[in-house]
Amino acid sequence: MKQKTRTNSYLKELYCSKCNKIYRADQVQQLCECGAPLLVRYDLDSAQHEWKQESLKGRTKSLWRYKEVLPVENDENIVSLGEGGTPVLPLKDAGKKIGISNLYLKDEGVIPTGTFKARGAAVGISKAKELGVNTIAMPTNGNAGAAWALYSARAGIHAVIVMPEDAPKITRNECAAAGADLYLVDGLISDCGKIVGQAIKENGWYDASTLKEPYRIEGKKTMGYEIAEQFDFELPDVILYPTGGGVGIIGIYKAFLEMQKLGWIQGKLPRLIAVQAEGCAPIVKAFEAGKRESEFFEHSETVAFGINVPKALGDFLVLKALYETDGTAVAVSDQEILSAVQTLAKEEGTFVCPEGASLYAAAKKLRESGFFSQDERAVLLNTGAGIKYPDSVHRDIPVLKKDAVLG
Amino acid sequence: MKQKTRTNSYLKELYCSKCNKIYRADQVQQLCECGAPLLVRYDLDSAQHEWKQESLKGRTKSLWRYKEVLPVENDENIVSLGEGGTPVLPLKDAGKKIGISNLYLKDEGVIPTGTFKARGAAVGISKAKELGVNTIAMPTNGNAGAAWALYSARAGIHAVIVMPEDAPKITRNECAAAGADLYLVDGLISDCGKIVGQAIKENGWYDASTLKEPYRIEGKKTMGYEIAEQFDFELPDVILYPTGGGVGIIGIYKAFLEMQKLGWIQGKLPRLIAVQAEGCAPIVKAFEAGKRESEFFEHSETVAFGINVPKALGDFLVLKALYETDGTAVAVSDQEILSAVQTLAKEEGTFVCPEGASLYAAAKKLRESGFFSQDERAVLLNTGAGIKYPDSVHRDIPVLKKDAVLG
Repeated sequence: MKQKTRTNSYLKELYCSKCNKIYRADQVQQLCECGAPLLVRYDLDSAQHEWKQESLKGRTKSLWRYKEVLPVENDENIVSLGEGGTPVLPLKDAGKKIGISNLYLKDEGVIPTGTFKARGAAVGISKAKELGVNTIAMPTNGNAGAAWALYSARAGIHAVIVMPEDAPKITRNECAAAGADLYLVDGLISDCGKIVGQAIKENGWYDASTLKEPYRIEGKKTMGYEIAEQFDFELPDVILYPTGGGVGIIGIYKAFLEMQKLGWIQGKLPRLIAVQAEGCAPIVKAFEAGKRESEFFEHSETVAFGINVPKALGDFLVLKALYETDGTAVAVSDQEILSAVQTLAKEEGTFVCPEGASLYAAAKKLRESGFFSQDERAVLLNTGAGIKYPDSVHRDIPVLKKDAVLG
Repeated sequence: MKQKTRTNSYLKELYCSKCNKIYRADQVQQLCECGAPLLVRYDLDSAQHEWKQESLKGRTKSLWRYKEVLPVENDENIVSLGEGGTPVLPLKDAGKKIGISNLYLKDEGVIPTGTFKARGAAVGISKAKELGVNTIAMPTNGNAGAAWALYSARAGIHAVIVMPEDAPKITRNECAAAGADLYLVDGLISDCGKIVGQAIKENGWYDASTLKEPYRIEGKKTMGYEIAEQFDFELPDVILYPTGGGVGIIGIYKAFLEMQKLGWIQGKLPRLIAVQAEGCAPIVKAFEAGKRESEFFEHSETVAFGINVPKALGDFLVLKALYETDGTAVAVSDQEILSAVQTLAKEEGTFVCPEGASLYAAAKKLRESGFFSQDERAVLLNTGAGIKYPDSVHRDIPVLKKDAVLG
């Protein structure tokens, strides 16, 4: 048998995020019996003695630099398109405009497939490969489906993707190019979820829906590790995150807790801010009512398609992260979002997706309300490239004849 | 006066690529008096003693890790969106399909603005800022305009962009979002060039057209430095490059010559291959005729819009790079290009632009013709993300009702 190369992962087991029941990590697992998501536990007691920050120097810039706290055990199972290591950019002019001296953008547009979904897909598909999965299935608002379809293609795994009919066309084409079985639904992501759930039951496929497999969050959490490393392990004061399914915010919080255990970071954690669109703000509604879970948000609609999630399976984990870090939740209007897309492009040259732009609008509100002060360091986590949303900008452009004279 | 931080650039002077006349690099310069492009010369005699490969360890992953051989002299002038450090991916399955064991993709889709144009824009705009430029102008097939408009916005420089009316819509939106003065022309990039040329003369703007300013090529050449570093300074045997204006191939060749002088690489250089579309193949035509320059290619048309350049100003430099490395030039059809987009996505999970896909089709031809052997290492330089070309994939997707049953 071919010699396998170990990744040196400290992977230990899975545990339920609600009832704490423990599951083995070397078999396919989905939700806990109690219906809640499973999370990955590492042997951080050993890791804190054996794994030091210094070992990161000279490693690949991709998210696989954190292999010790990722769930893949053999290098040969790593399915990579070069994801991770996205830049953190100072937003001096845009920050000044809203009274924030230290505003930053972590730009997840600079990643394969153009969105942060690549992180979850890379780790999720790698682990699925390690577990011998043949077919995955998932509902999606578009970007996750595109990422999982492309990583599946690279892994030689078959993908069944179901998305709302009005999801961004470009994500449809990505799935199609990747050779996935793609279906459109005349409805919302929640409707797609029901169709996928039924089909999974009948066909025995691997359910790659948000938080229904435990590993997507592990990919997403690397954003937290990167932010820490990029700020030399002196964490920023506030992190704003566009929240649909919320896996990123859960993941970033998990990363911070892990790094505390590893002894890599000290002191107060950044306040985590969930930003939603006014047209779909279940987490904001729940937070404002001091609740631990959200309710289904009826008739949801927003230009920030990626965060149009009326009820997230992990809502209670998102809310927990907000409460425990003294964070908050904010809703902004579609008009504020589209205006922020333009401001960021004009002032900073960053063409972000509507979801990312919502953070700038939210930062303005939070600064005005005094939630954070001028000198605190705030990070906007832009989840994707503006080029995936070609219709978020409108302007009439003059058309010239071949022999026209300009200026 | 504020203290300036030097970049330690070995910048020396500019010289004409045709007549060798020398120009100062601390003033705005465009073409040589003789009409040919100016190139940047560094003091590599000093650099080879003072600057060692080892110094790269632990540096930023962006292209600014090569500051010693970039033209910017003060750190404060660097305008960056986090460009460079793009991944090199093995294409095992796609390689096997066409009989190449060691096929790689350098994926310039994973970069701000989604195309390799970000490299030229970052360095070009940074140097323009250093030289005190207020307004740049350029004709473009879309992607370069988008990149220069966004970097200009970040630099606080005004941009005038002129592109063909049928250039990709997404690039139009990027320019508009960045606040550039944008004009569409009912014609080709050559028509846009004439309009821009006239306007520049009348308004005294900085001409940022391909090779009319000397610094874009310096940004592009970093692809060559990265390839060398990513292959541990054991260069691959063949590099395929989609050739429109050809700045990338000229830049990569320049990088290799510089690294030879620096003592960083030894032995035979990779054979450089210019790949064009059958609908616009002036370089291929010239190469096949053994000529040193190309002729205007009439009625050019191709789905690979970025390489629809009927006559490149730097054609003689491209041809020189091909001749001097024992390379060649190949044309492929639009049908081959679109089929390659799908093959790469299905086999490898890489959704590349049509320009990048053309390289896979060309590699197949070159392998069949025996131009390279099965075991040689071949790199495809994908110049941009497939998501910038949403129409390069077509498939009918079934639409389901909310209560549909799958499978």
